[in-house]
Amino acid sequence: MSFNSLKKPVKSIPFDWYYSSSIYQKEISKIFLNEWLYVCHIDSIKSSHFRTLQVDQKNIILIKNKINQLSVYYNSCIHRGSQLFESSEGAIKTPTIICPYHQWSYSIKDGSLLNTTSINIQSFNKKKYSLKKVNFYIWKGLIFINFDSKAKFKLNKIFQYNDSAIEKLNLDKFVVGHVWKKIVSCNWKIYWENYSECLHCPNIHPELSELVPLYQRRLVDIKDHPQWQILKDQNLNEKYQGGLKKGSETWSYDGSAQGCSIEAIKEDLLSRGQIYISTWPSMFLGIYGDHIRIVRLVPLDEEHVELTAEWLFEPSTLNDKKYNKKNVIDFAILVMNQDASISELNQKGVKNFNAKEEGVLMPEEYIIKDFHNYIKDKIKKK
Amino acid sequence: MSFNSLKKPVKSIPFDWYYSSSIYQKEISKIFLNEWLYVCHIDSIKSSHFRTLQVDQKNIILIKNKINQLSVYYNSCIHRGSQLFESSEGAIKTPTIICPYHQWSYSIKDGSLLNTTSINIQSFNKKKYSLKKVNFYIWKGLIFINFDSKAKFKLNKIFQYNDSAIEKLNLDKFVVGHVWKKIVSCNWKIYWENYSECLHCPNIHPELSELVPLYQRRLVDIKDHPQWQILKDQNLNEKYQGGLKKGSETWSYDGSAQGCSIEAIKEDLLSRGQIYISTWPSMFLGIYGDHIRIVRLVPLDEEHVELTAEWLFEPSTLNDKKYNKKNVIDFAILVMNQDASISELNQKGVKNFNAKEEGVLMPEEYIIKDFHNYIKDKIKKK
Amino acid sequence: MSFNSLKKPVKSIPFDWYYSSSIYQKEISKIFLNEWLYVCHIDSIKSSHFRTLQVDQKNIILIKNKINQLSVYYNSCIHRGSQLFESSEGAIKTPTIICPYHQWSYSIKDGSLLNTTSINIQSFNKKKYSLKKVNFYIWKGLIFINFDSKAKFKLNKIFQYNDSAIEKLNLDKFVVGHVWKKIVSCNWKIYWENYSECLHCPNIHPELSELVPLYQRRLVDIKDHPQWQILKDQNLNEKYQGGLKKGSETWSYDGSAQGCSIEAIKEDLLSRGQIYISTWPSMFLGIYGDHIRIVRLVPLDEEHVELTAEWLFEPSTLNDKKYNKKNVIDFAILVMNQDASISELNQKGVKNFNAKEEGVLMPEEYIIKDFHNYIKDKIKKK
Repeated sequence: MSFNSLKKPVKSIPFDWYYSSSIYQKEISKIFLNEWLYVCHIDSIKSSHFRTLQVDQKNIILIKNKINQLSVYYNSCIHRGSQLFESSEGAIKTPTIICPYHQWSYSIKDGSLLNTTSINIQSFNKKKYSLKKVNFYIWKGLIFINFDSKAKFKLNKIFQYNDSAIEKLNLDKFVVGHVWKKIVSCNWKIYWENYSECLHCPNIHPELSELVPLYQRRLVDIKDHPQWQILKDQNLNEKYQGGLKKGSETWSYDGSAQGCSIEAIKEDLLSRGQIYISTWPSMFLGIYGDHIRIVRLVPLDEEHVELTAEWLFEPSTLNDKKYNKKNVIDFAILVMNQDASISELNQKGVKNFNAKEEGVLMPEEYIIKDFHNYIKDKIKKK
Repeated sequence: MSFNSLKKPVKSIPFDWYYSSSIYQKEISKIFLNEWLYVCHIDSIKSSHFRTLQVDQKNIILIKNKINQLSVYYNSCIHRGSQLFESSEGAIKTPTIICPYHQWSYSIKDGSLLNTTSINIQSFNKKKYSLKKVNFYIWKGLIFINFDSKAKFKLNKIFQYNDSAIEKLNLDKFVVGHVWKKIVSCNWKIYWENYSECLHCPNIHPELSELVPLYQRRLVDIKDHPQWQILKDQNLNEKYQGGLKKGSETWSYDGSAQGCSIEAIKEDLLSRGQIYISTWPSMFLGIYGDHIRIVRLVPLDEEHVELTAEWLFEPSTLNDKKYNKKNVIDFAILVMNQDASISELNQKGVKNFNAKEEGVLMPEEYIIKDFHNYIKDKIKKK
Repeated sequence: MSFNSLKKPVKSIPFDWYYSSSIYQKEISKIFLNEWLYVCHIDSIKSSHFRTLQVDQKNIILIKNKINQLSVYYNSCIHRGSQLFESSEGAIKTPTIICPYHQWSYSIKDGSLLNTTSINIQSFNKKKYSLKKVNFYIWKGLIFINFDSKAKFKLNKIFQYNDSAIEKLNLDKFVVGHVWKKIVSCNWKIYWENYSECLHCPNIHPELSELVPLYQRRLVDIKDHPQWQILKDQNLNEKYQGGLKKGSETWSYDGSAQGCSIEAIKEDLLSRGQIYISTWPSMFLGIYGDHIRIVRLVPLDEEHVELTAEWLFEPSTLNDKKYNKKNVIDFAILVMNQDASISELNQKGVKNFNAKEEGVLMPEEYIIKDFHNYIKDKIKKK
C-alpha cells in the first residue's frame, strides 16, 4: 500500500534562495525566460484587442486581430525601441500596429514592417525590421508563451501535476467571469510552497477546512497518509474521505453551486471535491463543482510575486440570471488572501538564516520536494 | 548639392546603453565629470545670493558676492564634510561663508579658511583647508562649470552645433523671466535624441508643426532633404521654406510677439524662424522672435533626467506692461511636455533589447549619429 | 598638567566610509554582528511579554516568561523559516512558542522543539530542531546581546568610556518612564561623532549650552582645555567649572528636578552636572540629577540610523504625583532633534569627497579619534 508522503523528513533548499539576488537572476534567466509561462485564457482577449505581460525586464504584447488570430510580439518598435502599447490592455484602433513615436507601421498578423516615415531610404531593407516575435502556444484555450523562441510545447511535460479529468473538458469554451490581482511580498517559491501542502490548512484556512474535511487533517490527498487504505475504509469518518463536506457542491461561501455544475466531470468532482493541475513556475488550476480557477504567478523581484486569478465558467452558468458568481469568487479571494498573509510572514523569517542553512521538509511536503528538485535541476543547467 | 541627411540608415548604439548602470557610471565619470556643464544664466543669481547644483554625487554652490563676482565651490566644509548651504538657492546673510555645524568661516571670494572654533591649534596650517574650488567660465552671461579643475573653456569646441547669429547678441544683458523644472523618466540620451530630429514632430507636436510648416515634413532643416534646392525654389510651398507660418513672429501660442522683437537678429529670424545652439551633454538654446529659451539637462540616474528651462528676454520686453510672457512660456512647456511623454515611452521599450541589439538611425537622424559618436568617443577615453 | 585634547589636529577617516556600501557591510559583519549590542532595560519587557530587535538582516526576539526569566532567539521557525512573532512587542498568550504557519511548538525557556503537526515522523530527531539561540547578558538591568554565540561579556572592556560613579547605582531597580524613537538620515558614525564633541554646542544647542555653561566654551570636559587647571582656579567664571548653571539641578527645561534626586550619586552630580558612559557601537547613557537617559543606535543602512531613547527613573520619582516627567523628556528630545538635524546636514556634504580624501579632527575631537581607531581596528580584523 503505497502513499504519497515522504518516508522521512528531508532538507529543504538553502534559505538564501528566498532572498539572494544572484539566485533570483538565475531563476529569471534559466526558468522564467526558458519555460512555458501561462498568460491568460483566450477569452481574456477580445477580437481586435491586445493585452501586455511583463516578465522581469521583458514586456510583450498579445494581439487578437478581428478574425481572432493571436500574435505575440515584444512590445517595442525596432526603430529606436519605443514602447508600442502603453496600456496593459485595450482595443486595437488601426488596421496595423503603428508606433506612437515615429509612426512606423507593422502588420498585426506577422509583425512585418510596412512603412517608415523617412525619405531617401532606397537602400533600407524593410524585411530586416520586423517586430520581434514571441513563441506561443494555445492549449485548450490557455495561452502560453516562451521567451525561448525554439522551445516546443510538449503537453506531457508541461504539467508537473496533471489530472486526466481535464481531458473531458472543453476548456476553450469556458468564459472568464472575473479577474483578480494581488502583489504578495514574498519570494515566488514561497507562494508555490504554500500551495503545495495542507499542513497549514486548519489554522490558516478555517472556512476552507470546514468545507474540505480532509484539510482538517492537514492532508492534501487521502493517499498522503501511510494508512490511507485503512482510514478510507472507515467511511464513517468524513475527514478521511477527501471531497467536500456533506451537502456541499463547490468551493463557495455556502457550499452551494446554485443549480449549476460542470456536467462533463460531475462524477469526478462528486467524489473528489476538487481537481488540481499545475505547471511550474507560472500556473495552477483548480476545477470545482461549477467553475474553474486559474492562478498565474509572475515574480516581480526577489521578495515580491504578482498573483493573477481568473475565474472560468461555462457560458450557461454566467448567463443564468439566478447564478451569483460572487459566491465562488469571494470565497477564493478569502483563501488566497489568507495564503498571501502567511506567505509574507514566512518571507519575513527567512533572512535569519544564511546560504549554509536550510529548513526541513516534513513527509506531507512531498510536492515541495519535487518543486525543489525542479528548481535545482533548472538552475544547474547551462 | 549636398544635404544634411545620412546617405543610408546606420546602426544606433546598443540598447543597454539606455539602462545599464555600468554604462551610466562611465557616462558620469567620463562625460559629466569632465565636460563643461551649463548651470544657468548669470541673471539667475542675484547679488549676495547663492544657488546649488547637484550632478551625480556632487553638490556645488555658486555664490555671487555683493559686487557681483562669482565663486563656485563644492558645497561641503573641509573640517568634517558638513554641507554648507542646505537650500537650493537663497541670500548670503553673512560677510563670510560660515559652516552651520562648527562655525568654520571661509572667504566668499576665494574660499580660504578664515577661522575655526578650536583652541590650541598653533600647528594648524589654515592655508591647507580652503574650500574646494570648482572650475567655471562665464561666456556671454552663461555660466558653465567643469569638475575637471584643469579643463580650459574653448569656445570653438564647446558648442557641437553653433550658429554665428548668436555673436550679434548681447546675451549677458538678457534677463531671466521664468524658470521651469521637470523630471523626465528616461535616460538623458533619449531626451537628447528626441531633441535631435523632427521625424516625430507632426504626431507629437501638432501645434508646433502648424507654427513651423517644415516640421510637418518631419524635417529640422530644409537642407535635410536631398532635393532641398529644388524644393526651396518651388516657393509656393511654405512647407519647404523653414521659418514660421505666414503671419507668425515667434514661438508662442498665437504666433504673435506682441510688438517686441530681438532687433539684433530680427532679419535672421524672419527667414529662419528660430536659431538653435547646443552643447552636449548639458544644454540646448533656442532663439525666437522675442525671447531665448535655454534647456539644461542633468541626469539623475540611468532612467531619469532633470530638465531646467530658462526663458530669457531683453529687459525692455519684460518691462513692457503690454507684453504677456505667458504666451511664449506656456507654448514651450506644451512642447517640452509632449517631448517628455514620448521620451518616457521610448524608455519603457528599450529593455526588451539587450547589449547585443541596437536600433537603427534613419537618414534624417544625422544629428543623433553625431551625438552617438560623441558619446562613444568620450566613453572609450581613459 | 595633562589635558584630554589632542596635541594637534589629525586626519579623520576617509570620507567614503560614510556612504560606501562595502565599508558598511564590513561594519555590519565585523562590528554589529560581533560586538555586544544594547537592547533595552530589563524593565522594558514585562512578564510574559516579548520584544523584537532588527539588526541588519537579523530579527531576534527577547521573551520574558511568567517568572521573569529572559530568553533570546532568532525570530524564525526552524521548519521553513516563518517569522514567529510579527509585532515588535506584545504579550505571550500561550505557554509555549507556537509558529503561526504550521503550529510547531517550542519551549519558551530553552527553545527546544516540543511538537510538530506532522504524522509519520518516527525518524525525526526533534532535538536537532530547537530555536536558534542568541547570546545575551544582563548587566545591572541592561540587556545586551551578541550575534557571536561564543563571545563573553567582559565588563572592563564593554564601556570604552566608563565612569565609576555608576557602581553606586542600583540600575536594575530603575523603571522605564518613556521611550522615544527617531530615524536619522545619516551614517551611524556621524551620529556618534556628533555625540563625541561639543564644538557644535553653542550654535546647535543654545538651550543646553545655557544649562551647562562649559558647553558655551565648546568643551565637553574642563580638562579638554590645555590650561584647565588655571581656568578652574579662576572660579569666578562659571563657564569653566563644568556642572550646571547656578540653581539648576538636572537636564530639564527649567533646570528643576522637582524635588527628586538620585541620592546615591547626588554629590557627584552636584559638582559635575552629568555623568556619561558609552559603549560602541550601540549605546550611550547619561546620568542626570533626577533621571537616566539611554540612547541606542542601530544602523538601518549606509545613510540611516535608528535612535531609541529610554528614560529611566527611580520608582519613587515616577510615583511622585507632583513630578512631571515631561520636563526632562522634552528637553532631551529637543537636544536629540538638534543633533539629528545637524547630523543629516553633515551626511549631505560627505559625498563631495571620495575615498582618498578625509576631513580633519581638531584637538577637542579626541573622542572621535578614539572612535575611529576602534572602527579601523575592528574592520581590519579577519
